[in-house]
Amino acid sequence: MNTRKPTLAVVGATGAVGSVMLQILSQRQDVWGEIRLVASARSAGKVLQVRGEDVVVQELTAEVFDGVDVAMFDVPDEVSAQWAPVAVERGAVAVDNSGAFRMDPEVPLVVPEVNPAQVRNRPKGIISNPNCTTLTMMDALGALHAGWGLKELVVASYQAASGAGQPGVDRLYDELEVVAGHREVGQHTGDVRASVADKLGDDSPFPAPLALNVVPWAGSLKDGGWSSEELKVRNESRKILGIPDLKVSATCVRVPVVTTHSLAVHAVFEKPLTVDAARQALIEAPSVVVLDDPEAGEWPTPADVVGTDPTWVGRLRQALDFPNTIDLFVCGDNLRKGAALNTAQIAELVAAELTAG
Amino acid sequence: MNTRKPTLAVVGATGAVGSVMLQILSQRQDVWGEIRLVASARSAGKVLQVRGEDVVVQELTAEVFDGVDVAMFDVPDEVSAQWAPVAVERGAVAVDNSGAFRMDPEVPLVVPEVNPAQVRNRPKGIISNPNCTTLTMMDALGALHAGWGLKELVVASYQAASGAGQPGVDRLYDELEVVAGHREVGQHTGDVRASVADKLGDDSPFPAPLALNVVPWAGSLKDGGWSSEELKVRNESRKILGIPDLKVSATCVRVPVVTTHSLAVHAVFEKPLTVDAARQALIEAPSVVVLDDPEAGEWPTPADVVGTDPTWVGRLRQALDFPNTIDLFVCGDNLRKGAALNTAQIAELVAAELTAG
Repeated sequence: MNTRKPTLAVVGATGAVGSVMLQILSQRQDVWGEIRLVASARSAGKVLQVRGEDVVVQELTAEVFDGVDVAMFDVPDEVSAQWAPVAVERGAVAVDNSGAFRMDPEVPLVVPEVNPAQVRNRPKGIISNPNCTTLTMMDALGALHAGWGLKELVVASYQAASGAGQPGVDRLYDELEVVAGHREVGQHTGDVRASVADKLGDDSPFPAPLALNVVPWAGSLKDGGWSSEELKVRNESRKILGIPDLKVSATCVRVPVVTTHSLAVHAVFEKPLTVDAARQALIEAPSVVVLDDPEAGEWPTPADVVGTDPTWVGRLRQALDFPNTIDLFVCGDNLRKGAALNTAQIAELVAAELTAG
Repeated sequence: MNTRKPTLAVVGATGAVGSVMLQILSQRQDVWGEIRLVASARSAGKVLQVRGEDVVVQELTAEVFDGVDVAMFDVPDEVSAQWAPVAVERGAVAVDNSGAFRMDPEVPLVVPEVNPAQVRNRPKGIISNPNCTTLTMMDALGALHAGWGLKELVVASYQAASGAGQPGVDRLYDELEVVAGHREVGQHTGDVRASVADKLGDDSPFPAPLALNVVPWAGSLKDGGWSSEELKVRNESRKILGIPDLKVSATCVRVPVVTTHSLAVHAVFEKPLTVDAARQALIEAPSVVVLDDPEAGEWPTPADVVGTDPTWVGRLRQALDFPNTIDLFVCGDNLRKGAALNTAQIAELVAAELTAG
């Protein structure tokens, strides 16, 4: 048994997910030796806190990965595409939270509660972390799939601003300040758009105003009018759950919530299931909390879920007109389980393997 | 031909829907003689403007319906249940926007673009106006059903605060003022709930904070954990479209939008259809506008739709994994087409009948 604790690099330490990662690394069991913080040249030299200690952010270079065992990437696709292989060349295992490698057949896409064994199946030395919207429902659906065989999914999302990073969070707060206190705004066509554009300009991470609005678009345009986000939900769910012919239709919509994605899920199974049996399976599932007592006003909402680790499930209903079908509402913190937490869990699986080795 | 213009009573003239009704009555072709405004004793004596004239609000009594040809009701279920039959006894046709009579087999449930002939099938003298959430999609689905035969619907809603009336609108604005300018609120568990409760108390028309949140509940609890709103979407869609065995699963969610409901709709048809043919049918449908060019950033959002009459449809996609299936996103002003406008249209159908008679 190797007793040296492995070295971790956090690339993208200064972003919205990176900030949450530093909190998470300070809260979880301490499996890491050195934690190296890495960011673009612009952010290099900043001092951040992790595990109660000041750490100076280093610039992203090939050399920064020397001696690193696991390198986490929370950066845009193109940065991961370029730098994750560099980290691997320098001897690290890369755990990547971008979309660059997720659908690569030689890169596993891992949710530790669902398909942990896939972590070892990494011929490129890279492990991908799923998209935050997909991750919101994977722990719950993994548990139900194990019992009844998932066949079809119809999903509508209620996605938080922080899914677009810190600029998304800032924009939502900025827009709220513009509209708050003006009780006519939101009641007439174009009001919100005009007042927001007047005060803040059109340079937004969102393609329409988000305050007092919902925006049925996330990501980029793909064939057939689908958004990249909607195709990620379909393709990543198939890969994580190991159901290549899973039928999926998703509609991804941004809502004026800071953090925590919610999903309305219509899930059809191979085998007959009751809502009581489904509830029991979810109660027993790791990292899932069932909050489902409408009579007492209990179901998950983003305001109550943000900052927590589990997947929260409520509004469990037996579909009235569809056989073997459950309708449910799921919330998960998109910066934690949807990003930083799942990445940290994957990295810990690799750390355990290295330490055991 | 009767040349006297019929007399209209607007019961609930001072509410959120009533206020929009007065605007609509001032904008539409003038089919009415006298317009009598009626409300509870508390609001009687108020002076409101309709068609550019001051009208004094009268108290709701049996006598107020004397000489009235059509009486519209925009009041709670129990008020309609009591007073619509009184209006009928006094000789009026009642057009009711509450839930009191919608599922009564002797009361037609009418969307003028979909089932206008049902207006004459009113043995009780009462015609019901559908629930605002159902109405958001009826014009679009009616057009698609006519062409391809609707078989199944999976719906997730993004419902505006004004669906809960003026108290809902006021509460949302109040909550926005509390959270705006506090850039930490929304990032930690319970923050929004605590700050809103601290400043505004818990006496809200919504069962959870709505600012910076989404709330997966609307209406009252029914069997199997379904909300009354979700069952309305199912049962009213079946009745309006004349498809008694239509399969429906709906999840109804309140979002921090002032006015305009949105729906993500997964619609399965009997016959094969292409997205292009569906788009053409929607373009040709009365009162439907197709806004569907994601490359140009065009799809409907509540901020752009509020204050307009049509149903707006975008994000038309051929389902990738489901045969004969279209996914779409629909927006409609819940106070206009979702309530006052559809009621006004029904009343105008009755007026035309009375005038022709």
